[in-house]
Amino acid sequence: MPLTEKTCVPCRGGIPPLTPGEASALHGQVSGWALTHEATRIERDFKFDDFAAAIAFVNKVGALAEAEGHHPDISFGWGYAHVVFFTHKIKGLHENDFIMAAKVDAIT
Amino acid sequence: MPLTEKTCVPCRGGIPPLTPGEASALHGQVSGWALTHEATRIERDFKFDDFAAAIAFVNKVGALAEAEGHHPDISFGWGYAHVVFFTHKIKGLHENDFIMAAKVDAIT
Repeated sequence: MPLTEKTCVPCRGGIPPLTPGEASALHGQVSGWALTHEATRIERDFKFDDFAAAIAFVNKVGALAEAEGHHPDISFGWGYAHVVFFTHKIKGLHENDFIMAAKVDAIT
Repeated sequence: MPLTEKTCVPCRGGIPPLTPGEASALHGQVSGWALTHEATRIERDFKFDDFAAAIAFVNKVGALAEAEGHHPDISFGWGYAHVVFFTHKIKGLHENDFIMAAKVDAIT
C-alpha cells in the first residue's frame, strides 16, 4: 500500500525505532527527503517565492500533522521552509514519519 | 517613543548594522529576547501547551511580519517556537528588528 494511503498510528514509545535498513527501504518511497542523523530523521528543504507562500505551506503541513496526530519540527522564513520528521518518543524513525513525508510531498 | 508605536521602515541595505552599543541600548526595551551572534541577532523561545497553540502563535507573528514588511526566521513544533530577527541585507541588526520584537512581545 502506498504510504499516502496509510494513516499514522498512535506511538507512545516502548518500541524500537526502525533499523537503518528498514528506514532505507521506506526512504525509497520519499526519495526527495534526506535520511539524516544515522537514519534517525528525515528532512527536506522547500523553496518559495516569498514569506506568504512559505507560511501558507507551513499551515498546510500543520493541518496535515494535526489530522494525523504526528507533528514535524519546522524552520521557515522568507522564501523557505525546512521540515523534519522524527519520532521523539522512540528517539528515531517510525513508519508514521514516512507516512507524513509522503503526505507532505502530495500537497506540494 | 516606545518601540511598539514605531513602524518598520524599508531597509534595502547600503547602511551599516547597529553597533553593539546601539543594539544593547534598544535591547533594554525587549529584555526577554537574547542578543546573540556578537549582537547581530535577537532571538526568543516561546513555550506552548501543544502544536495547535504553537502554530497559532506562529501565524500571529507571520501576520505582524507581513504588515510591517519585516520577517523573522521561525523554528517551531509541538509546544514551542523560536523566533529570530536579523536584517539579512545588512548582515546584522536594524531598529526594525527591535520594533518587531516589541510587537511580538505585545501579542504574547
